[in-house]
Amino acid sequence: MADARKTMIAVVGAGRCSKKLRDMASQVGKYVAEHDGVVVCGGLGGIMEGAARGAKEAGGVTIGILPSDNKEEANEYIDYVIPTGFGEARNIMVVRTADAVVAFPGKYGTLSEMAFALHAGKPLVAINAWKLGDEIEQVDDPIEAAKRAMELAEKGK
Amino acid sequence: MADARKTMIAVVGAGRCSKKLRDMASQVGKYVAEHDGVVVCGGLGGIMEGAARGAKEAGGVTIGILPSDNKEEANEYIDYVIPTGFGEARNIMVVRTADAVVAFPGKYGTLSEMAFALHAGKPLVAINAWKLGDEIEQVDDPIEAAKRAMELAEKGK
Amino acid sequence: MADARKTMIAVVGAGRCSKKLRDMASQVGKYVAEHDGVVVCGGLGGIMEGAARGAKEAGGVTIGILPSDNKEEANEYIDYVIPTGFGEARNIMVVRTADAVVAFPGKYGTLSEMAFALHAGKPLVAINAWKLGDEIEQVDDPIEAAKRAMELAEKGK
Amino acid sequence: MADARKTMIAVVGAGRCSKKLRDMASQVGKYVAEHDGVVVCGGLGGIMEGAARGAKEAGGVTIGILPSDNKEEANEYIDYVIPTGFGEARNIMVVRTADAVVAFPGKYGTLSEMAFALHAGKPLVAINAWKLGDEIEQVDDPIEAAKRAMELAEKGK
Repeated sequence: MADARKTMIAVVGAGRCSKKLRDMASQVGKYVAEHDGVVVCGGLGGIMEGAARGAKEAGGVTIGILPSDNKEEANEYIDYVIPTGFGEARNIMVVRTADAVVAFPGKYGTLSEMAFALHAGKPLVAINAWKLGDEIEQVDDPIEAAKRAMELAEKGK
Repeated sequence: MADARKTMIAVVGAGRCSKKLRDMASQVGKYVAEHDGVVVCGGLGGIMEGAARGAKEAGGVTIGILPSDNKEEANEYIDYVIPTGFGEARNIMVVRTADAVVAFPGKYGTLSEMAFALHAGKPLVAINAWKLGDEIEQVDDPIEAAKRAMELAEKGK
Repeated sequence: MADARKTMIAVVGAGRCSKKLRDMASQVGKYVAEHDGVVVCGGLGGIMEGAARGAKEAGGVTIGILPSDNKEEANEYIDYVIPTGFGEARNIMVVRTADAVVAFPGKYGTLSEMAFALHAGKPLVAINAWKLGDEIEQVDDPIEAAKRAMELAEKGK
Repeated sequence: MADARKTMIAVVGAGRCSKKLRDMASQVGKYVAEHDGVVVCGGLGGIMEGAARGAKEAGGVTIGILPSDNKEEANEYIDYVIPTGFGEARNIMVVRTADAVVAFPGKYGTLSEMAFALHAGKPLVAINAWKLGDEIEQVDDPIEAAKRAMELAEKGK
């Protein structure tokens, strides 16, 4: 039998971002991995790469769900690449795979992921991301965000 | 050869809504049909049904792109039903099929459609819908909204 | 209310083919249109273009469900273009949209469409296409194939 | 940085099957895991469950890509569940995620997976599965099938 399934935390945000934001995403990934969670993301750069790097530095596991059907496009910190070929529709799968979502600043792709998280009733913790109402927990600190996401994910499982 | 392709206007919004909003959606559909446009929507109730009804009353054409794979779920005003079986991912297709989008109030499904419209660079006219920034034209009157959507759609083609 | 919905016939087959096959596909499309049916296809060249051309020559309606998100890739005989951006997964939607499927020779994309038609229990009429078992009606003549598809579609509605 | 990515082998076949076939699928999964590969499958019963069980018994890793959006439907041997909500379109993703595919007997869902594997140019090894031409290696023994799939996958990477 599979080990009791690990908690999956999606980290979403811009595919290109400042070093500061990428490092914050990395702190989220590190915390998740240190607490036996798995990082799932869109598999590309920016926030996604930061989160995956942090998880790998802590010895964790990472899953990247790509828009294209080309595995080579995944960043180097992704263990398991799912090359969907479904374009932006893969955003829905990132969210569905997660038990909770941490959202960083991003453009309309990120907005769609937040919309799908809210639609699916997934816990959503935001760090300076789109303000979309009271169902989203607003947090400033990445460690705090990761901690809340893990708590909410485990409550929901 | 096909007739020069007709302008496609997506009308998005809540699957359940007040009679007042449904009638406003109907006015949008009617205007689009009277100006030789096609109404595309998610094929279900509420705003979608209102828009399709208005288009049919004006002798127009309607396309409904369903989340389920069951054609029977389409409202009675849909001429051409596309039963995707892709769940909420069909929202992306509604938007991609359109040359411009008119958004009514709705919940997170509507928000995802607006996000995808903005992501895809589709002109987006909103009637009391989510406030997401300056790229969206805010309009109060349904006829005005339909008119602007047709103008923007034809400019973009 | 929408007119009683028209019967939808999918025509599937190779995106590149001989003139002879394209003309046979055209005969299918023509028959469908003359009998008040709608042709749905993948929107590209070869068999798809032949079928759509035949339908338009008879004054019919055509729907093309594209793999890419680029409407420009549709052939000139498509009235309503659905640019999915879902790649080959659009094959499933072509089949689901149809009430019956006519299959011409094609490679593995066509095979996947036949598989999905059989999976979904859609009537399937084949003209020299993949031999996959007794559930498929094998027909040599395109008019005969179109006629059988229309009959089976209307029985199943 | 992620460990050099592991070879991914998809195992496809009927969701319900005889104990004998399930045990054969289990042998495939076991071989893959013993040789440091990952088993990817559709996450449900029958062949999918057999393959995942074999991999877990050998201490390996398993990924299940579900048709529904409900993680609970995955079999107990799946480590990482991707609940797509895309219905049968998830078959394409199972194939795209794999470096090679082992096909067991199955109905039309399995046929669609074989069609997509051939379409995508993925190495395909079949154990009494659909006979679709010379591009498919036909093998009788599950260990032999797993071995060939791993060889072909590593050649193609």
